[in-house]
Amino acid sequence: MYICKKINTMKDLKEILKRISENNASFLGYPLAKDFSYQEFAPFLDLCLNNVGDPESPSTLTIDTKAIERKCISFFANMLSTNMDEVWGYVTNGGTEGNLYGLYLARENFPNAIVYYSESTHYSVKKNLHLLNINSIVVRSQDNGEMDYDDLDQILMNRRDKPAIFFLNIGTTMTEAVDDLDKIKQIISKYAIKNYYIHCDAAFLGCVAPFADPKPKFDFSEGVDSISISAHKFIGGPIPSGMVFAKRQHRNRIANSISYVGTLDTTITGSRNGLTPLFIWSFIEKHGIDGIKMRVKKSQGIASYVERKLNEIGYNAWRNKDALTVVFNKPSEEICKKHQLASERSIAHIICVPGIEKEHVDVLINDLINESVLVY
Amino acid sequence: MYICKKINTMKDLKEILKRISENNASFLGYPLAKDFSYQEFAPFLDLCLNNVGDPESPSTLTIDTKAIERKCISFFANMLSTNMDEVWGYVTNGGTEGNLYGLYLARENFPNAIVYYSESTHYSVKKNLHLLNINSIVVRSQDNGEMDYDDLDQILMNRRDKPAIFFLNIGTTMTEAVDDLDKIKQIISKYAIKNYYIHCDAAFLGCVAPFADPKPKFDFSEGVDSISISAHKFIGGPIPSGMVFAKRQHRNRIANSISYVGTLDTTITGSRNGLTPLFIWSFIEKHGIDGIKMRVKKSQGIASYVERKLNEIGYNAWRNKDALTVVFNKPSEEICKKHQLASERSIAHIICVPGIEKEHVDVLINDLINESVLVY
Repeated sequence: MYICKKINTMKDLKEILKRISENNASFLGYPLAKDFSYQEFAPFLDLCLNNVGDPESPSTLTIDTKAIERKCISFFANMLSTNMDEVWGYVTNGGTEGNLYGLYLARENFPNAIVYYSESTHYSVKKNLHLLNINSIVVRSQDNGEMDYDDLDQILMNRRDKPAIFFLNIGTTMTEAVDDLDKIKQIISKYAIKNYYIHCDAAFLGCVAPFADPKPKFDFSEGVDSISISAHKFIGGPIPSGMVFAKRQHRNRIANSISYVGTLDTTITGSRNGLTPLFIWSFIEKHGIDGIKMRVKKSQGIASYVERKLNEIGYNAWRNKDALTVVFNKPSEEICKKHQLASERSIAHIICVPGIEKEHVDVLINDLINESVLVY
Repeated sequence: MYICKKINTMKDLKEILKRISENNASFLGYPLAKDFSYQEFAPFLDLCLNNVGDPESPSTLTIDTKAIERKCISFFANMLSTNMDEVWGYVTNGGTEGNLYGLYLARENFPNAIVYYSESTHYSVKKNLHLLNINSIVVRSQDNGEMDYDDLDQILMNRRDKPAIFFLNIGTTMTEAVDDLDKIKQIISKYAIKNYYIHCDAAFLGCVAPFADPKPKFDFSEGVDSISISAHKFIGGPIPSGMVFAKRQHRNRIANSISYVGTLDTTITGSRNGLTPLFIWSFIEKHGIDGIKMRVKKSQGIASYVERKLNEIGYNAWRNKDALTVVFNKPSEEICKKHQLASERSIAHIICVPGIEKEHVDVLINDLINESVLVY
């Protein structure tokens, strides 16, 4: 790898590059694809880029990549069973911003609503709700991480008078569980709730679930209102980023025109990253729909291999249907650290992102075998 | 400039690079320094980087640049007359996020407060307040863009019962006006308001004002509670970024521990950009305090030149004391477009950021002269 002059003169940075390179090679526990290279975009690092304001609105300061951003949004909108007439979206700084945005639109739609989300939901959602000052109720989860629909039913039974915002997990952080939209819709019908909004947090699976068979119900063909996807997860990239999609009428409700930059202030941050749309677009150009499908298939194959191998050595591994996340008994701290496995209480997981190959898994399996030999 | 293979194969991208390069060279109206080069950091574009959670908290996923991030925060904390015992901060995705964060901390401190901000305030603040669901009152501005203190006095006279959040502009977007903290403190004293919070939006001037003589009162030595600075403005960079600083007790109030990543969820986005702290740190290493001082002096010199030249040709140019922003009568749309001048109603401005030299200004001056010859 070429190490630049400046990094050479900055000892700290050289060490950071080395550490991050090594840790990139070794981690198994995080939903971050590793098989990318964006070094070729280096010329852009010398330029001011700014996708200020709404991606569909031209700015007077034309140092943006909004045309590419719109192409990315349009490509993924199609993957989410819709088109740009129906939905609007933008490239975010990550899944959290997309969820914040979806919840913001939901609150603007129903200011006195209650948000319902399962206890397996990503920790940032609680913070988002706090930021937005929205009331919420946590629904119990089933053992697999999916929402407990009986609990949701119980909760809604006494709250039929309030508008409802449903925050669904399309792949929970720990077990990649997918909340069942049909079951939630049944409860909505049962209590004749007319004022409701559905947001899907598809941070990791937004790019995976469209190719599962059968496809989980979570996209715009099912009538959801907004979806947040991370781009640095299954797509992969050096900078946290994502995409948020919402029905166009929700975005129009909050649109706010500003004379200064001559663009609409419809996004959370205003000044926005112009590089990440380029990365996402190059991913699309490189893989295309068929390539993404193959990528999903390959990762599912690796996950199946991991599950089998772990069970062979007695680690009680399991995964949700078609999941890339394999959950198993938490091994020693030493092994968790070496392979950077995320853990929660007594369980750990491996997430079979693109870039993780059987040989990486085999190293872990060997370490686990050696450790158990030492213990016995 | 080297154009990469991938960009060559992607016609659109090649055109975007060309357009952005050209527009970077020509814009005069935006507060974005142009004299940087971060192409040397290209090796990082092939790696997953993520400064997830609190910059002071180690993560189990060590693909971060938090040590560098803390150095950046510490350096600028010193510039803002404080230290890391007193304040806490993190690298944001831009000034808007920093303002959102400051207002969030303020609301957590005083949930029923009213926010007071002048009508010259950046448009994103209204959106932030809406997002946070905080009551606010807009204070009139004086002609130079500074808050109208008599109006603030009038407003507060009838609201002595409410906690107050003062949102100050340390450099407004259009005229680089600085709100006068002493005058605001006098009003606070006059009405014996005990529950108040002061946030300073120093997006552009956070890195400039510390070197003005006399220094405007806006930093932690004056008892402010939080400050937001943009890093892609006076510092410069390809990705919108910034830093937010807050008294440590405010951050502690909202700290929220999470087991999953083993880090604290004290920031807005959670997963955070690990590249921008490297850019900011390399800026610090390159310039140091003395270099930044010289940078400020040089820009002030150019601003003085622009003001004089514009007045020589009858454009009624003026600027606030020591400002890098020169305000003048709005020229034709054609010239505004060619030189990318931001405008508001009948005025336009040039912002003399590093990277703008006298020869760039002379081209504009010539265009203005030629145009007026054509008109008469």
